[in-house]
Amino acid sequence: MHFTSERRLADGVLERDFTLGEIPGTLWTPESASASASAAFAPTPLILLSPPPLGLRKTYPRLAARARHSAAGGFATAAIELPGCGDRPRRPAAEQALADLRRALEADGPVSDEIIDALILPLVDEAVPEWQAALDALQSLPGIGGPVGYSGGVISIGVRLAAVEPRVSAAVLFAGSFVPRSIFEEARRVTIPLHVLLQWDDEGNDRRAALDLFDAFGSKEKTLNANMGGHTGVPQHAGDAAAQFFTRHLK
Amino acid sequence: MHFTSERRLADGVLERDFTLGEIPGTLWTPESASASASAAFAPTPLILLSPPPLGLRKTYPRLAARARHSAAGGFATAAIELPGCGDRPRRPAAEQALADLRRALEADGPVSDEIIDALILPLVDEAVPEWQAALDALQSLPGIGGPVGYSGGVISIGVRLAAVEPRVSAAVLFAGSFVPRSIFEEARRVTIPLHVLLQWDDEGNDRRAALDLFDAFGSKEKTLNANMGGHTGVPQHAGDAAAQFFTRHLK
Repeated sequence: MHFTSERRLADGVLERDFTLGEIPGTLWTPESASASASAAFAPTPLILLSPPPLGLRKTYPRLAARARHSAAGGFATAAIELPGCGDRPRRPAAEQALADLRRALEADGPVSDEIIDALILPLVDEAVPEWQAALDALQSLPGIGGPVGYSGGVISIGVRLAAVEPRVSAAVLFAGSFVPRSIFEEARRVTIPLHVLLQWDDEGNDRRAALDLFDAFGSKEKTLNANMGGHTGVPQHAGDAAAQFFTRHLK
Repeated sequence: MHFTSERRLADGVLERDFTLGEIPGTLWTPESASASASAAFAPTPLILLSPPPLGLRKTYPRLAARARHSAAGGFATAAIELPGCGDRPRRPAAEQALADLRRALEADGPVSDEIIDALILPLVDEAVPEWQAALDALQSLPGIGGPVGYSGGVISIGVRLAAVEPRVSAAVLFAGSFVPRSIFEEARRVTIPLHVLLQWDDEGNDRRAALDLFDAFGSKEKTLNANMGGHTGVPQHAGDAAAQFFTRHLK
């Protein structure tokens, strides 16, 4: 992990861009955290924040706002660019799947399982090991430690990470993307506390599938928080509830 | 409205039993509220808390805990006994409907629309005007005023009250009881902010019907907060979220 830039934000949060191999990312740490030896005894818990496929730069305002809100609660936040997004090399098979999806949506037809699998599964296969490598690097930083949370919008990535990565203790998942059938089976193996956000009137979303996925999760403790407002209109109080979830489980 | 007894609880909350005609009820007011003239300029907002059909006395611990939690947030809370419950005269048709329901459940068969209608609709027809009369009396008390919230467990009562009573500004509804088909139509006419609690693994509940009812509500602002824990296992954080909902909308 190489830090490439840093700046101190108005509320004291330290924002540092980094690269992990060829993968760009950003780490936000609260003012209270420090690299000193004392931080080893009171490490700052970390939230992994998976950005949307639109890319880190395009969605910076949204990501930074959430990271600063988390910092106010005493959490560090780290985001890395998803495969094929932002400045990362394009993935030809993914581009093809996206074109097939657009064609299906324009024809107003159903989106086939084949298209969903082609769109999502390779992304999950590539992204999950990258998040695990990022976690290895981040947890080796002085001052970062303790339970780890995951918060993200391509829900299938979060499902697999929650199922296979024991260091992730709690997850906030946003149910607004297509979910391959095989991911439902992986969801049954998830047992950590979950907080699932769903925008009830999200017109691009398969709501029935989102509710079925919530049902499939094996976790004894899971909450579904559904609100109105369309795909991007998550109300402030829903963000607050998700933050309170992380405080309950990671602090 | 005649007050029949009063006592001051440990946290300063004033608990007063009353009768409204033959209907017993209880009013809890925060320590800060008072009957003095100054209270007319800073009236205490009121939450109507509809008890379960088990009766006020049997469910007192649960009701008092919620009333005291609301009092800590600056709210008065009032509960009245539902028709046919507690010490109130039994309703023969309701007893018949309950017996029919039990028979259907024991036979493991579906519960017919006829049984659901017979069980719920007369209760709603009787209870809603009683809640409105209680609101008339409560709002005439010095110190009580401002927006009114409703929180209750026989969801169909809340649906109709929210649709017909303009003084109710926001409602927390618990989706855990049978809902007649006609109540779905009434739900479309509800437009106030709603916070709906659902126990996802509530085995006695028709979850599909609960989700359809949530979908039917006409409100632009509505939240579904679903958790695990069975019918009576609403987690503390869900109660907190409902309290925060009332603070946002009534204060």
